[in-house]
Amino acid sequence: MTTAPEAPATQTSAVTVVPSYVRDAWWTPDTEALGSGRGAQVRDASTGELLAVVNADGLDLAGMVEHARTVGQKSLGELTIHERALKLKELAQYLNGRREEVYALSSKTGATKIDSMVDIDGGIGVLFTFGSKGRRELPNTNVIVDGPMENLSKDGSFAGEHIYTRIPGVAVQINAFNFPVWGMLEKFAPAFVAGVPTIVKPATPTGYVAEAMVRLMVESGILPAGSVQLVSGSARTLLDELDYRDMVSFTGSAGTANMLKSHPNVVHGGVRFTSETDSLNAAILGPDAGPGTPEFDAFVKSVVTEMTVKAGQKCTAVRRTIVPQEFVDDVVAAIGARVTERVVVGDPRAEGVTMGALASLEQLHDVRGAVESLVAAGGRIAFGSLEAPEVVTASGEKSVVADGAFMAPVVLTWDDALAPALHGTEAFGPVSSVIGYSSLEEAVQLAALGAGSLVASVCTNDPATAQALVTGIAAHHGRVLVLNREDAKSSTGHGSPVPHLVHGGPGRAGGGEELGGIRSVKHHMQRTAIQGSPNMLTAVTGVWHTGADRNLADTDDPSTHPFRKSLAQLRIGDAVRSGLRQVTLEDITAFANETRDTFYAHTNEEAAAANPFFPGIVAHGYLLVSWAAGLFVSPEPGPVLANYGLENLRFITPVPAGDSIRVTLTAKEITPRVTDEYGEVRWDAVLTNQDDEIVATYDVLTLVAKEWPVPVAEG
Amino acid sequence: MTTAPEAPATQTSAVTVVPSYVRDAWWTPDTEALGSGRGAQVRDASTGELLAVVNADGLDLAGMVEHARTVGQKSLGELTIHERALKLKELAQYLNGRREEVYALSSKTGATKIDSMVDIDGGIGVLFTFGSKGRRELPNTNVIVDGPMENLSKDGSFAGEHIYTRIPGVAVQINAFNFPVWGMLEKFAPAFVAGVPTIVKPATPTGYVAEAMVRLMVESGILPAGSVQLVSGSARTLLDELDYRDMVSFTGSAGTANMLKSHPNVVHGGVRFTSETDSLNAAILGPDAGPGTPEFDAFVKSVVTEMTVKAGQKCTAVRRTIVPQEFVDDVVAAIGARVTERVVVGDPRAEGVTMGALASLEQLHDVRGAVESLVAAGGRIAFGSLEAPEVVTASGEKSVVADGAFMAPVVLTWDDALAPALHGTEAFGPVSSVIGYSSLEEAVQLAALGAGSLVASVCTNDPATAQALVTGIAAHHGRVLVLNREDAKSSTGHGSPVPHLVHGGPGRAGGGEELGGIRSVKHHMQRTAIQGSPNMLTAVTGVWHTGADRNLADTDDPSTHPFRKSLAQLRIGDAVRSGLRQVTLEDITAFANETRDTFYAHTNEEAAAANPFFPGIVAHGYLLVSWAAGLFVSPEPGPVLANYGLENLRFITPVPAGDSIRVTLTAKEITPRVTDEYGEVRWDAVLTNQDDEIVATYDVLTLVAKEWPVPVAEG
Repeated sequence: MTTAPEAPATQTSAVTVVPSYVRDAWWTPDTEALGSGRGAQVRDASTGELLAVVNADGLDLAGMVEHARTVGQKSLGELTIHERALKLKELAQYLNGRREEVYALSSKTGATKIDSMVDIDGGIGVLFTFGSKGRRELPNTNVIVDGPMENLSKDGSFAGEHIYTRIPGVAVQINAFNFPVWGMLEKFAPAFVAGVPTIVKPATPTGYVAEAMVRLMVESGILPAGSVQLVSGSARTLLDELDYRDMVSFTGSAGTANMLKSHPNVVHGGVRFTSETDSLNAAILGPDAGPGTPEFDAFVKSVVTEMTVKAGQKCTAVRRTIVPQEFVDDVVAAIGARVTERVVVGDPRAEGVTMGALASLEQLHDVRGAVESLVAAGGRIAFGSLEAPEVVTASGEKSVVADGAFMAPVVLTWDDALAPALHGTEAFGPVSSVIGYSSLEEAVQLAALGAGSLVASVCTNDPATAQALVTGIAAHHGRVLVLNREDAKSSTGHGSPVPHLVHGGPGRAGGGEELGGIRSVKHHMQRTAIQGSPNMLTAVTGVWHTGADRNLADTDDPSTHPFRKSLAQLRIGDAVRSGLRQVTLEDITAFANETRDTFYAHTNEEAAAANPFFPGIVAHGYLLVSWAAGLFVSPEPGPVLANYGLENLRFITPVPAGDSIRVTLTAKEITPRVTDEYGEVRWDAVLTNQDDEIVATYDVLTLVAKEWPVPVAEG
Repeated sequence: MTTAPEAPATQTSAVTVVPSYVRDAWWTPDTEALGSGRGAQVRDASTGELLAVVNADGLDLAGMVEHARTVGQKSLGELTIHERALKLKELAQYLNGRREEVYALSSKTGATKIDSMVDIDGGIGVLFTFGSKGRRELPNTNVIVDGPMENLSKDGSFAGEHIYTRIPGVAVQINAFNFPVWGMLEKFAPAFVAGVPTIVKPATPTGYVAEAMVRLMVESGILPAGSVQLVSGSARTLLDELDYRDMVSFTGSAGTANMLKSHPNVVHGGVRFTSETDSLNAAILGPDAGPGTPEFDAFVKSVVTEMTVKAGQKCTAVRRTIVPQEFVDDVVAAIGARVTERVVVGDPRAEGVTMGALASLEQLHDVRGAVESLVAAGGRIAFGSLEAPEVVTASGEKSVVADGAFMAPVVLTWDDALAPALHGTEAFGPVSSVIGYSSLEEAVQLAALGAGSLVASVCTNDPATAQALVTGIAAHHGRVLVLNREDAKSSTGHGSPVPHLVHGGPGRAGGGEELGGIRSVKHHMQRTAIQGSPNMLTAVTGVWHTGADRNLADTDDPSTHPFRKSLAQLRIGDAVRSGLRQVTLEDITAFANETRDTFYAHTNEEAAAANPFFPGIVAHGYLLVSWAAGLFVSPEPGPVLANYGLENLRFITPVPAGDSIRVTLTAKEITPRVTDEYGEVRWDAVLTNQDDEIVATYDVLTLVAKEWPVPVAEG
């Protein structure tokens, strides 16, 4: 995407200055600085009315970074991941009830009601998602274990694994003008869950919407000190203050991204820098999806939606429509017909308007210029025009508005589908090109000419076509959507990043990754390999490791059984080891009869012995784990409320009749819930036989009360 | 780490030129180019003897990149991940039998036998590890699914997930001089498993050792066309040829890394760039680990090892020894005593030598200069000296060798533990500083002053100290080793990256990540979010997704049961759905008695009903999965050989007496093994009750024969 240039400097003392939020207090530049006339003007996109001035002269950027690294890191670090995630949920609920005032501001940016929903409700939705995912998918601590332990020694005394801990600095988020709320919250949410304080720098033209949102966030009283700060205005020297402890997530023009990426503190200093920039996203129509198919209709609908939502000012909009050569004319005609039928351009505050203004006159100027350069490079305007359109004004009349940044949708066609401008020039408005292909291979090549994009659509109902196109273009894209009759209605759409899935793409798209569920939380953390004895890995992670010491229950004293301990008493390493129980052929036969699992390995000695893995008849694996439960259970009511699952079960050594088994069960990971009176306990289960050979290993998942007996709730 | 400057240009026509391997053929510059005198001389580190000349004048770098992107990508893409991993194993076996000739060359670099083992055997070990991990931990396809499917619609018709596919370009690997074999293979192995062709550029001073290894790799005939190419000589313009499809993994000086990182094709063009550069690694002694403890001895031994292995020319060597203030003198004395007792400096070809020469006289010059600047900044030489040491020559005599790059170990102490030079100047030789701390917090701060390091050791036997120090410094490090009495003998050591764990670190260490098992394979791939209907996600990934079509067996015709199909016949989506079976209270009671799992939820109606999750007595979860096996099994001998495990079991809806259950089992993922006559089949299992509510979900893991009946082996 591209950002609009800032309005020229002017005398500004008469209008509101958009404030910054600095070191937990609101800040505006002193009047003398304003008097110097260095403010940038911000205007209503539809009417040209002057709304505010943006000026950050004299802002103490170094102090903001220091505040985040000290106060912000400290206050966030005093909470666990689950506690922070819960705060996000509370924040989402708070903001959800106060959307209207933000909607009112949003319409001044040229956004329709639907555009504002995408931005505001979409942003709040990200908070809800991370509030939920942070608690469901991450541990309730501040150390995340990544992957299994790797044994690195013959005797098991030395092992290694990976952990994530938050980066020890600040997350600087530099955002684009098109989604001032969503663009802010989609970066803030994962940083917050990770425990990393944010400094947000919105784009000047729509930063007043972001400011309104930050004001609500601050007023909520939910966020810890130093966890969010706001720069309203230029932050040109902000990178001077950063080092390897910090990260920058940039969304905006490739030019600015490249400038920031070349900063000495990025190149030499190790600042973590990701960007999300220009992207000429493609939509590919499959050969099977010709006119008359549900896929053709879904495709045309999607292309028109992506051209017109937010007036096409979306980094994810469809810029290149790649269709079978024989369908080019049909597609252009269908797009034109749908635009004519559905799209009403005008002031978003007017009834019936479906497409608003671009964000500013400067932006309009840029987009028209881009279309002109596309035409100069061989593009033909097959639908629409660059003339200033007649639009619906706020009062409901139709007229051409000189001060409004309005533009009609434009479709281009090309004789030369390989023209570099077609694949390299982004017109950041309601503009798309339609080109033809003659083979799937060619379609993949055309899509790849985007040189790295955020997203592509593949529209087909043929599985083989989907497979060939998606795997062919995947490495050039951050996201690929397959559209067909099955998901045409339920799809969240080509242009909409969802918090569950990665947003970002290689090459021209900036090479970054945002969102993607907890992936984006981990982007705010450092992955570190740790090595040591099982006891030391246990100490560092808070998760019991195979080979570490156990605190075995006294089998003569049932009250020492770990199932008798509430979360308040239970410690990792608390364990119980059963006696041996012998398995007889009668047991196996009875189990086969009752479960009706008469697989020959349990019922037919000769056939079982012919199997490469069994010595003869062996006990059912299900018998073994069922018996193990009988061996480890403490049957009377107690703090262990339920066994809700089981993971990573592997049968290692078969158990023929005559062998005996015992089980050792050890508390491995304890996760108290922040909103319930119980939590999850994961137990390490090891079944061994009479020769201490390992028969099976698995994890038993239980819910355990925080206190036992459960305290009676008071009136 | 730092790389040695290249020897000055000279007339070189008389000596061997180290060849390059280009477009599947060996290449040397023509004699005219050589006559121009632009070759770099390479000399024996211990004797100064001229060994070879390195010159790549006229090398067609653009052609190499093109060859990799076309021939290399194609030939590697014709293999699956498992097939490539198996080739790595075969390559490792081939090289293992031919190590001696590489050892002979390695000793000329100043490497002792042990140094060479670390380099050569260590490198081959990486191939073995990736040969094994690639087949054990990744699917046997070319699309890796990352994480679970995320449902994105109310009706289940639209969902998303992430896949990894290889990057569509070349992996350029620029390596340091200190480990010419390991440094090459640790990058080559994961690229190869990912399916990405390599162009390797070794450091000039020891590139002849890498060349010898590449020669063996080529001679093996194991590697597909275009999968490896070698640049022996300067590759200054190589980055000009790269774009966002490619990646560069650089190991060497920070200066060179910064130059490459600023290249327009990195900043603007999206070349993926990772580096592993300078690092002032720390070793921290815990307050509990004073003189007389096993930890103190292990610590001193480790510091001396890291100072002297490879003459301290290791990016992972201990440069900063951080110990309790009161133990500083003891630690310096103990290091000195151990060096005096154990370290014999000399020509590695001489008997009894335990520390060889630095790689070159230029390197010796650099290290002496670094020590002098440390002294100028306040460091005191507390042990050793910068004088040219008397060393053991190849003939076994002791003398000072003017042309040998020998240096004695040096220990520095400091009055000011915060001196910037101490934390910022890397002396890339047998040099370490010892400083004191007075609190764990201060120890963390001192370690962090390295501003990002590859590795740190924490030496303590106290779990709380380990926890505080490791979590305190983790975000500043790529790897942290905890050393104590339990792992002192079995530890692989502070300085040794292992293929299972990440190698790399933030900030000054370059910000990169290498190794880490399959993490490094994924570093050579693009992660892409894909969205679509379950049928389309199934088509793209080759893994059956919940909600996709099933091919249900005919319950009236047992021969259609999917368990009757070998891997040659079985397809994902092949499924069987059982009838309902009712669970009675008698069944539950009988199961409790036989398994002895008499948990009150299965035996005591009143207590069960008081539990927040159960309506009253419910069936054991283990009863349900055991019965499910009876419902889905096809008992006669057939292609399904064994059920070797179970994953992700979750109990969703309790089953009281009177309810009935049925199971639907669907082939989800099929992984034929490349070296066995069977493979893994993962089945999706869903238990539902009489009201079609989901009772439990899990994956059943089985081994299934490739053909059935199993063909009789011939001969």
